[in-house]
Amino acid sequence: MTIPAPFLLYLGSTTDPVAIKTSRGLATFRREDCVGEFRHDDCPLTLGLPRMTIAQGVAAGARTLVLGIANAGGTMDPQLVADARAALDAGLNVASGLHQRLRDVPELAELAETRGLSLFDVRDPPAAIPVGTGSPRAGRRVLTVGTDCSVGKMYASLALVNGLRARGATADFRATGQTGILIAGGGVPLDAVVADFISGAIEQLVPARTDGGWDVIEGQGSLYHPSFAGVSTGLLHGAQPHALVLCHDPARTGIRGLPERPLPDLAECLAFNIQVARLTRPDVRGAGLCLNTSAFGEDVARDLCAETADRLGLPCTDPHRFGVDAIVDELLCPESSTPAPTALN
Amino acid sequence: MTIPAPFLLYLGSTTDPVAIKTSRGLATFRREDCVGEFRHDDCPLTLGLPRMTIAQGVAAGARTLVLGIANAGGTMDPQLVADARAALDAGLNVASGLHQRLRDVPELAELAETRGLSLFDVRDPPAAIPVGTGSPRAGRRVLTVGTDCSVGKMYASLALVNGLRARGATADFRATGQTGILIAGGGVPLDAVVADFISGAIEQLVPARTDGGWDVIEGQGSLYHPSFAGVSTGLLHGAQPHALVLCHDPARTGIRGLPERPLPDLAECLAFNIQVARLTRPDVRGAGLCLNTSAFGEDVARDLCAETADRLGLPCTDPHRFGVDAIVDELLCPESSTPAPTALN
Repeated sequence: MTIPAPFLLYLGSTTDPVAIKTSRGLATFRREDCVGEFRHDDCPLTLGLPRMTIAQGVAAGARTLVLGIANAGGTMDPQLVADARAALDAGLNVASGLHQRLRDVPELAELAETRGLSLFDVRDPPAAIPVGTGSPRAGRRVLTVGTDCSVGKMYASLALVNGLRARGATADFRATGQTGILIAGGGVPLDAVVADFISGAIEQLVPARTDGGWDVIEGQGSLYHPSFAGVSTGLLHGAQPHALVLCHDPARTGIRGLPERPLPDLAECLAFNIQVARLTRPDVRGAGLCLNTSAFGEDVARDLCAETADRLGLPCTDPHRFGVDAIVDELLCPESSTPAPTALN
Repeated sequence: MTIPAPFLLYLGSTTDPVAIKTSRGLATFRREDCVGEFRHDDCPLTLGLPRMTIAQGVAAGARTLVLGIANAGGTMDPQLVADARAALDAGLNVASGLHQRLRDVPELAELAETRGLSLFDVRDPPAAIPVGTGSPRAGRRVLTVGTDCSVGKMYASLALVNGLRARGATADFRATGQTGILIAGGGVPLDAVVADFISGAIEQLVPARTDGGWDVIEGQGSLYHPSFAGVSTGLLHGAQPHALVLCHDPARTGIRGLPERPLPDLAECLAFNIQVARLTRPDVRGAGLCLNTSAFGEDVARDLCAETADRLGLPCTDPHRFGVDAIVDELLCPESSTPAPTALN
């Protein structure tokens, strides 16, 4: 799947900053491929790119409108369909990471066909996914996990890949969500896989590896999110991670989409993830924590990281602000960590 | 979905007794609707029904061939397709609980259309499943869980429904697998639901209930099965169960399909299921254990149940052999049990 760049990034009428995470991911990690952002007048958000109409995007060279917004359920409302139509009318391909497929909207499918343009449904899982086996496989794998959805697992994963490479290690990013797939140009949209095949999809995406390199696997959801914990569980089992990095947003006051539900304690959350992961990787261990401190000033952010590192006995950083050197140290020198307790079973 | 009875039950060339569980479920719980069993000469299994060719099944009044076999991955091999063709040629509808859809096999779809017959894909999930919320809802719910796949969760659930009704309680069976759905005539094929919607599918199947009746929810997989634990996790969260009944096959020596992997300890398994379930139902408790003792003589079976009950401090029975009265007592008199520990979070 090669989606023609450059991109015009869609924000639509979204008012929730977290809901534009796919557009923001592209604006951050593939900024050179983004000509501008499209938003309606009622959208208060920006990615810091030039605001453009669809016609202006075409004039600036855009080849694809990326519907880079996320919403629980992933359906397309009439405005989104109308905007996608307008993009096709103007000669743009359209890419989407929503659950509902562009190709399943007849007016879009027909228009794309007529115009000779392409619809890219990034959340389409591969056709033949095997059932997972949990059989031990070679390789060195890190998985990011979270206290909640959308707390920076993808950002942390990409930072860890860069950090490992900076030390001369071979490292690859393994995308499991629509944003990561759009950034990496490949991966598996894990939340769109049929439930019986969650762990198998990860075993297929990240097979045995003997070149000494690292696979850094993007986490999904949270064991503490009652909507999505099944996905997180299968991902833990399929990944067979040697190390977990726990991601957290210290500004968040309740579980995303369920604000009355409190976030878990960090130490408890890491311990529970380790407990679940041990089913397929008995010696899994925590290697560090990543906080998204963007809501705080630099001094507060530094204090938050230091206090968390002290409390959990593991390196803690904001990858965007302070880098991931301390966690990479921990990954590359596993003998420095305490031995894993005996396996769960 | 009303599948025309009577049924001819398909065993094919299956040699694994567990793999014919869908045909066996119908033979056990809807025997009056089954005219016979179809098997090839290399199939050593029987359900105790008359063995029939397809032509003999038609002559005996069968209206539907039920492909009641299960295999990891759920695909159709050429023999299965050929047998389904032969059934359609002879005037039978065909029902299947496999992942691969009958209607996606062009020769079957065309033949059914030509003959005016129906193909029933029982593992087709409903179209519009909401994302789960975990919000507390009214009702009294029991969920069966297991040390492994195919250890008797559906049998235990059906026995609990009958046991509750025998005491004058209102109770309904909520099917989550293809066999249960064929028996009950409704339900949701949970392992075929898209991963993001596992818990939401159960919230939809078993909504809030205020008539004082019980919902007995059929469990799926096991938290200890590395292929399917994601499904089991989402089911625990969506069910919000007041009580769990742990099912186990004491004759099994390793995890189904992964024989080198040991089964979990019963007490540890129940405790872990309770820990996961607490996310949406903080006061969930264990209400009993069901053993499938069919591999043992009656004395051994009775000893196994007594020893297990002593060790775990909960009623333990083989529902098929000894009934479920003790577990129903435990469900109807919750004050007899020890209070649940405080919630996980």
